Amino acid sequence: MVTNVAVIEVKPGMEREFVAGVEQAMPLFLRAKGCHGLSLEQCVEIPEQFFLRVRWESAAHNQNLFVKSDDFKAWRKLVGHCFAGKPKVHHAETVLTSSNEGG
Amino acid sequence: MVTNVAVIEVKPGMEREFVAGVEQAMPLFLRAKGCHGLSLEQCVEIPEQFFLRVRWESAAHNQNLFVKSDDFKAWRKLVGHCFAGKPKVHHAETVLTSSNEGG
Repeated sequence: MVTNVAVIEVKPGMEREFVAGVEQAMPLFLRAKGCHGLSLEQCVEIPEQFFLRVRWESAAHNQNLFVKSDDFKAWRKLVGHCFAGKPKVHHAETVLTSSNEGG
Repeated sequence: MVTNVAVIEVKPGMEREFVAGVEQAMPLFLRAKGCHGLSLEQCVEIPEQFFLRVRWESAAHNQNLFVKSDDFKAWRKLVGHCFAGKPKVHHAETVLTSSNEGG
């Protein structure tokens, strides 16, 4: 399992429109082969900065399948006009995890 | 709830020692007031880059209490020698979340 992290800077004042677009696009990710889930985080210090975190079975599911799909084009159509620049993307693997929460 | 994200670059070859240090330090975070849990992620593209993600009840629990505690000093003592530079820190709030996994 790998997390695709996109650091997305949106144009000032477009934060709400961007979040609404991501919410609308969620099914596109969730129905993609190998997608386990996603979350959107907003930076407290720089509110125009968002972190889209999508969990994939493998990096190949993300890069070889989803990025080349029509759903990826649809995703970019929903939110691309909010981007202030090209998103910076990396993949991350969870090495350690621990929680005080039940479950 | 807020996630404190520290981007930590470690010295080349010290990745395993750093991960072992974080594992040892986990109880220091988990017993801190307001800490809900933590995870350590490693960047796939740049393996010397780690993301320590600690979930706090509020930013104040992290900044006003933990950072000033003896446990914070103990944490830095366990891993500080692995750092290639000063960690870059930001706080993030979860705006949207969705999963294909059960539960």
